[in-house]
Amino acid sequence: MQKSNNRLTELLNIHHPIVSAPMALAAGGALAGAVSRAGGFGLIGGGYGDPAWLEEQFITAQGERIGVGFITWALKKSPSLLTDVLKHKPAAVMLSFGDPRPFVDEIRDAGALLICQCQNTDHVWDAIDVGADIIIAQGSEAGGHGAARGTMSFVPEAADLLAEHAPQSVLLAAGGIADGRGLAAARMLGADGVLMGTRFWASREALVHENHHLAIIEANGDETIRTTIPDIARQLDWPRGLTARVRHNTFVRRWQGREKELKQNLSEEVIKYAKAFAAGDIENTGVWFGEAAGLIEDIESAGDIVMKIATEAEKVMR
Amino acid sequence: MQKSNNRLTELLNIHHPIVSAPMALAAGGALAGAVSRAGGFGLIGGGYGDPAWLEEQFITAQGERIGVGFITWALKKSPSLLTDVLKHKPAAVMLSFGDPRPFVDEIRDAGALLICQCQNTDHVWDAIDVGADIIIAQGSEAGGHGAARGTMSFVPEAADLLAEHAPQSVLLAAGGIADGRGLAAARMLGADGVLMGTRFWASREALVHENHHLAIIEANGDETIRTTIPDIARQLDWPRGLTARVRHNTFVRRWQGREKELKQNLSEEVIKYAKAFAAGDIENTGVWFGEAAGLIEDIESAGDIVMKIATEAEKVMR
Repeated sequence: MQKSNNRLTELLNIHHPIVSAPMALAAGGALAGAVSRAGGFGLIGGGYGDPAWLEEQFITAQGERIGVGFITWALKKSPSLLTDVLKHKPAAVMLSFGDPRPFVDEIRDAGALLICQCQNTDHVWDAIDVGADIIIAQGSEAGGHGAARGTMSFVPEAADLLAEHAPQSVLLAAGGIADGRGLAAARMLGADGVLMGTRFWASREALVHENHHLAIIEANGDETIRTTIPDIARQLDWPRGLTARVRHNTFVRRWQGREKELKQNLSEEVIKYAKAFAAGDIENTGVWFGEAAGLIEDIESAGDIVMKIATEAEKVMR
Repeated sequence: MQKSNNRLTELLNIHHPIVSAPMALAAGGALAGAVSRAGGFGLIGGGYGDPAWLEEQFITAQGERIGVGFITWALKKSPSLLTDVLKHKPAAVMLSFGDPRPFVDEIRDAGALLICQCQNTDHVWDAIDVGADIIIAQGSEAGGHGAARGTMSFVPEAADLLAEHAPQSVLLAAGGIADGRGLAAARMLGADGVLMGTRFWASREALVHENHHLAIIEANGDETIRTTIPDIARQLDWPRGLTARVRHNTFVRRWQGREKELKQNLSEEVIKYAKAFAAGDIENTGVWFGEAAGLIEDIESAGDIVMKIATEAEKVMR
């Protein structure tokens, strides 16, 4: 498999324009390391701020050249996390879901590339404003947190903004991409590469319960929903407009439209959610995958995923 | 510009794999005729069932080889519309938003191709079941009516279903596509061509008020929303789960979340909506465009749109 050169692969010094998303809880050092080892670029999920867990993940990554991604509004609550993480010299730091400005200088001073993930054109303007090295246009199809714009029109619109106002910034597409067809399509839309969450969530290295893995193999792409329910049940204060795409299961059906009632029953429901999650229950907790579930039939190793997608994309584009 | 051969262009006997959507009220004979004349394939919007208007549109199309599209649940209320239309020998009839079965035989007997537009995998199964000649996977980005799936993952998932169960059916992608990049991306995802609404809504031949045309030129892709508000205000009984994507304007903001109240004020609001629509008001009525608005900077002739997109797609794919 030859190296597929473009601006992204040059900038990150990688072989394939494929980046794994820093999925909170699921994207640890094993996944990030495996993606980088295969010639893509792996990101550890900074999540909601557990310094000990993060330390561990950098060790697990075994010195592979990787990055780390943060939920920006959560990082604002414990900014020392960034300082700790930068000691490991990540090649890049990704910020998503909040104003990147408070963290930009520290990231640059540490010599890391700055990646900003965007859910709408306002976010793209913010990313341009801080001079992000890599900008991700994330569509609503994505699993986990995101917003309303679809990938198909958001990516070329972001590409146009960058072409005019930040031609040096590199663009990634995210949301609904899980195979070589998606990577090829992203390239046609003007992106230099892709960020994939769901596809790597369904990898052997992801920190995901095997029952949840079985659920994604069974699922078609219609079986997810964007909702605030899992965040209410986890007492996480996500900003308005940013919702979670999860499997549309019993738990979501029970509370959708009854958010107030859920909030009144939190003491009980928080425990039920967490217990069901730990037990690998697929009906009574959040099961975190996106619409690309309909394209996934196997749990594979992250390295195989990188290689297969790179190969398929080259084939499709020829 | 050379002919870009594929299964779609062969089947419809056209030059470019570009079909214009049968947008109710906006897609008349002038638009459909212009698209076909330029080497694409134009569809007249059957809308909610005005036989006199439809007759007129076939005359306006000046004998071009075109098709017609129906809102299936509305057609069920006045099925004689199909019988009337078939007398004009449309090359194809498109059905969307309802069970196609009641109309399939009549369409086939008239020698027209059957196009089924799908918003989720259940719809794709229905389309496979009736042996549709052309199946459209429509993503949520689309303007006007649609559902929840994003184009980016739905198209390859539909392609996989067709490859296995209906390899003779031809696939179109719809939703968020307005330029050659979108057409090229659709081809990468496994579609043979595209159906575009919003891009042709913003054409000179579309039956759209010039103020609404100015609004789409101004808009970026973030400024739309999927909502039931315009259908409530038009007293149209759309099936659950099918919503309208329109400009996120004063009218939508006023009633979003207050649907019950809107229903209680219908006698007044129905008139206000219709008056504002007729007057080309862009704030107090439905303004019917999709997320691709962010990719549109000019109102062009439909023929120029077809040619530019075909040319750009070829260039992007090379």
